[in-house]
Amino acid sequence: MATEQITLYGAKVEMALYEAKAGYSRFEVDLVNKPEWFARDVNPASKVPAIAYGGPQTSPDQPSPLSTKLTESLVLLEFVADLYPNSSIFPTDPILRAKSRFFIDAVTTRFLPPYMGPIAHAKSFEPFWDALDSIQRLLPDDKVFAISDEFTVADMAIAPFLGRMEVWMKNDIGAYPKGEGLKAAEYFFNGERFKRFVRYFDAIKARESYKHTIDMEYLRNAYAARFEPLRAKLQAAAAANANATTPTGKTASS
Amino acid sequence: MATEQITLYGAKVEMALYEAKAGYSRFEVDLVNKPEWFARDVNPASKVPAIAYGGPQTSPDQPSPLSTKLTESLVLLEFVADLYPNSSIFPTDPILRAKSRFFIDAVTTRFLPPYMGPIAHAKSFEPFWDALDSIQRLLPDDKVFAISDEFTVADMAIAPFLGRMEVWMKNDIGAYPKGEGLKAAEYFFNGERFKRFVRYFDAIKARESYKHTIDMEYLRNAYAARFEPLRAKLQAAAAANANATTPTGKTASS
Repeated sequence: MATEQITLYGAKVEMALYEAKAGYSRFEVDLVNKPEWFARDVNPASKVPAIAYGGPQTSPDQPSPLSTKLTESLVLLEFVADLYPNSSIFPTDPILRAKSRFFIDAVTTRFLPPYMGPIAHAKSFEPFWDALDSIQRLLPDDKVFAISDEFTVADMAIAPFLGRMEVWMKNDIGAYPKGEGLKAAEYFFNGERFKRFVRYFDAIKARESYKHTIDMEYLRNAYAARFEPLRAKLQAAAAANANATTPTGKTASS
Repeated sequence: MATEQITLYGAKVEMALYEAKAGYSRFEVDLVNKPEWFARDVNPASKVPAIAYGGPQTSPDQPSPLSTKLTESLVLLEFVADLYPNSSIFPTDPILRAKSRFFIDAVTTRFLPPYMGPIAHAKSFEPFWDALDSIQRLLPDDKVFAISDEFTVADMAIAPFLGRMEVWMKNDIGAYPKGEGLKAAEYFFNGERFKRFVRYFDAIKARESYKHTIDMEYLRNAYAARFEPLRAKLQAAAAANANATTPTGKTASS
């Protein structure tokens, strides 16, 4: 199938474009200071990833009104697979396709909800570990990836989050107290519980498309800028609270 | 494509099988008294809909271990579309496929969350009206259905919920106070705000597949059994609360 021009805003589905050997331009949207044309001309919801497909080739910051604008990561993953039906990024067998979508649904409904708990809200890691466990149980023992020995959209749906997880854990970045990230990294990467998951993640990390699209340094800086102030704030609040409820019985509000 | 035997448990995706002219058996699972074999042999999560695909033809209540068991409504809708690529239930154009999935995502993430509010929790209708509005804005003015003039999986994703909504509104069934359902029905079906949506729903209701798969009488009885006790309970609690906080100042707990 001859495809038209593809401009990707954001990064989340770049792995699929790379694996499908698509020609595409990519534009990194500054999520903190979004350019005003982005919501107006690309995605009214002002979220990435988004794709402008077709129309004339323009500079990404001057998207043509003639291109079709599409959004939502999972919609875009399937879109890329539909554009490149002869690539191996989506199985052709209906049963394997259904299993891929079931896996992606599990990533969305089980893995993602507790994912931000520890880093953004200093919540317990337990719900996150349980979620990782439920995904791990879906990984076949006798296959390299989630569905088969091929690297498919099912794997691409979780890969960016695993990459981000590795960054915040190993760099101990998060709203949680200092040291908890390193402890979590030790528990996940070197413990007994997630051996199958770590083997899966290692196979993902060996893909060229992963290396090309996950920028650890960029993520580390972005995460530090976002979550270190949160930790400082929570610690200051905890300290104030501890002062306010000393055994003398005095409270801040009294 | 020659397909194998298909057994559908539950009803939610029957419309797609019917529209694709698939051969299938259907088994209605009693959700209140689930047969013990269902979780064991079909869906460990004990939810419908589920499909047993392939393997020998057996009685639905004796599913073969040789069939593949698949679950999750949206996974099953895409599965049926994949089994019948020459039916018109899913567009073949990648852009229209992406738009279909975007619509389905909106149904899942915007329409469904507030859907149970009024009937199950006697919550305000406002969030539900806003959700219906956001779906209505996705309906093209110049097409019959959500994506095109064809009846596709996008429409099938919302149709069963609209059918259920019509049942509880027009029969005034829900945890909300008596009369609120009829008022809501008047507001939705005869008001100005949802004219486009009602036209869309009318087109859905004209499909044979809708008439064949939405059993209003069955739904009315099931909803009454489920939500009328809830209304009675909430009214009793409200009455007790009113008694407990009369102007005399007495409270139940004092």
